[in-house]
Amino acid sequence: MKSKPVGPIPEGYYALEGQLSIGGKTASEIAAAAGETPLFVYSRDLISARIRQLREALPDRIGVNYAIKANPFRPVLEHMRPLVDGFDIASSGELRLAQQAGIDPARISFAGPGKRDDELEAAIAAGVTLNCESSGEGERAMAIGGRLGVRPRIAIRVNPDFELKGSGMKMGGGAKPFGVDAEKVPDLARYLLDEGADWRGLHIFTGSQALNADAIIEAQSNVLKLADELAQAIGEPLPKLNMGGGFGIPYFPGDEPLDLASVGKALHERVEGLPASLQKAELCLELGRYLVGEAGVYLCRVIDRKDSHGVTYLVTDGGLHHQLAASGNFGTVVRRNYPIAVANRFDADAAEVVSVVGCLCTPLDRLADLAHLPRGDVGDLIAVFCAGAYGATASPSAFLGHGSAGEVLV
Amino acid sequence: MKSKPVGPIPEGYYALEGQLSIGGKTASEIAAAAGETPLFVYSRDLISARIRQLREALPDRIGVNYAIKANPFRPVLEHMRPLVDGFDIASSGELRLAQQAGIDPARISFAGPGKRDDELEAAIAAGVTLNCESSGEGERAMAIGGRLGVRPRIAIRVNPDFELKGSGMKMGGGAKPFGVDAEKVPDLARYLLDEGADWRGLHIFTGSQALNADAIIEAQSNVLKLADELAQAIGEPLPKLNMGGGFGIPYFPGDEPLDLASVGKALHERVEGLPASLQKAELCLELGRYLVGEAGVYLCRVIDRKDSHGVTYLVTDGGLHHQLAASGNFGTVVRRNYPIAVANRFDADAAEVVSVVGCLCTPLDRLADLAHLPRGDVGDLIAVFCAGAYGATASPSAFLGHGSAGEVLV
Repeated sequence: MKSKPVGPIPEGYYALEGQLSIGGKTASEIAAAAGETPLFVYSRDLISARIRQLREALPDRIGVNYAIKANPFRPVLEHMRPLVDGFDIASSGELRLAQQAGIDPARISFAGPGKRDDELEAAIAAGVTLNCESSGEGERAMAIGGRLGVRPRIAIRVNPDFELKGSGMKMGGGAKPFGVDAEKVPDLARYLLDEGADWRGLHIFTGSQALNADAIIEAQSNVLKLADELAQAIGEPLPKLNMGGGFGIPYFPGDEPLDLASVGKALHERVEGLPASLQKAELCLELGRYLVGEAGVYLCRVIDRKDSHGVTYLVTDGGLHHQLAASGNFGTVVRRNYPIAVANRFDADAAEVVSVVGCLCTPLDRLADLAHLPRGDVGDLIAVFCAGAYGATASPSAFLGHGSAGEVLV
Repeated sequence: MKSKPVGPIPEGYYALEGQLSIGGKTASEIAAAAGETPLFVYSRDLISARIRQLREALPDRIGVNYAIKANPFRPVLEHMRPLVDGFDIASSGELRLAQQAGIDPARISFAGPGKRDDELEAAIAAGVTLNCESSGEGERAMAIGGRLGVRPRIAIRVNPDFELKGSGMKMGGGAKPFGVDAEKVPDLARYLLDEGADWRGLHIFTGSQALNADAIIEAQSNVLKLADELAQAIGEPLPKLNMGGGFGIPYFPGDEPLDLASVGKALHERVEGLPASLQKAELCLELGRYLVGEAGVYLCRVIDRKDSHGVTYLVTDGGLHHQLAASGNFGTVVRRNYPIAVANRFDADAAEVVSVVGCLCTPLDRLADLAHLPRGDVGDLIAVFCAGAYGATASPSAFLGHGSAGEVLV
């Protein structure tokens, strides 16, 4: 039977005693220590290595923020705490997670188009920077600050007129529920300044999951230009500029990793020639998936091996209730295979074409269609890669009553 | 601005004091009593009415099973307990939910392609009927029964060679991870009978979410024919036949409700002329979505109203983390609008075109695109209909840390 290609296994995964190893332990050892499958396994070393690569490529004056939404597992946040400069949250729930991980609220910014009053209050009281998404939200924040006797720290999230080309998810360009249309930003900024807000500048997010360096370079250039124009219109230099993120990771056959060196080189040139309005601004990138996505693996176990009309199925104890994106059902039009392997036979040659499915009673629950893999039997471990971001929390874990997957940082 | 159509609001929802009412209470009263939004509201009356309609249309000898996966909220299960004949579960987690709701395990059947050993053990010990999905699973079940000293109650789930035409989700026809290919069923049944299983017959599921009565009638006819052929090949009459379900509900513009009378009429004719192998069989349909889908409403509150490049957005405290299917991101290729209303202005005329979005920081989080609705302001309640099935549990509730929605049965 003809196989379908699978995505590229990320760098940094090696065979140890024939098995996939993470953090110096074999997949079997990790599963045995956790006492359960399915299991998300995140690698300290790979997260650290990725941040180190970034720091080496970027100019020193550009900070790195972590968008907690990508992976809010507490040990991951604790590991990140000394490695990045700031953290971005999307809800008061994420604020609590960040605080539990010992992150100083002064390093946190809060973006999200639907912040409730109780969320604004919690953030303002804690000293978190709000990325304000509308004039209505700005007014609510100032009123809450007045009531609390706290001067809100506020930046404005801008809906730019351009987009990050080729990004998996466009966050700018045209009508959007996110941020404030660029032409309305100066008036809102003046209002916030006049009302006594602790002005924290701008947040300009243009898209996500882009693999093309030129597209990112162009978007960053446009972000700096727009920030300069807005700062001049506001009438004072920007204290801070969150330039957004958008750095993608390869998931699918044919995807090539982002050329980080090119992006870094262009940013070095940009920061040499910053306009006056930005020369004293703190600059940062906000990245989620790029920092943690490739550092995570979803491990599940083969429960049944069966044939149906010529197709061999490996039925696992995992599925879309833990890894919705890998099943191709979360914002995807055409399903393609994520990188996948038989974890306890990681260095074996491919020997058969199998479809790997989850345990849910729905045809949507596919982890790999007709993949060319080493032989897989009942009890074997299957590894689905690129599971470090938007996995455990971005999946319907209550679906069909199977429960959540375990999570470990090794 | 040109609007996009929204799906049809299900029957049974009326205005009371100008508001959407459910179970005789207004949406505002229900939200105030619950103390929170977002909130799933399920109607006892509408669930009961739907089951009554079914009973009236179906021959008496065809039982009605409820597939718990559609909505496992405990008060819903307790309400269903006296109203339906059997319950289908998909995991040991659902077995626990059913038992907590006081459902007798003798009325429960368990289907699912990846049943773990501990799940088989819990089900066999409790006296649940297993819908066996492979020869490997049959062997594991018999071994576990032997170890426990309990005779397993086992039916075989058949992967039929035909499908339910026009169904939203095909469960039969060609290679599938579900069930046992029809031609392999007689050998597996003989094995189970020889090993001393408590033989419970067949489960033949052909598809789901079909609105075309003729397609359902044809699939049911094929199911009875296949069941007869298999019973003859096995060599004894069937004790039981689960004929599957597949009855759909209207979600989208242009969808017409299933013609239940036609389906019932055809089934009356079929049961008059049953072949000898099926004359003593217990017959049942297994329905999930059809029983509860239209009886549920997802209520969320407008947090912000904003304009961006000519589009008005109502930003709510809800979103795809609670109602993934309504956002168009769960097994959907082309996004269309679910039925939606401004709940506290339910009898008002449409006055504007708005896009209703959730509070998540992703462009995927849309509840309605460019819907023609009455004016909606901050504090208003938005109702998204068809939320009774595959809502709360089929959504990534941990995504972005906003937490789960409340649930009430009124």
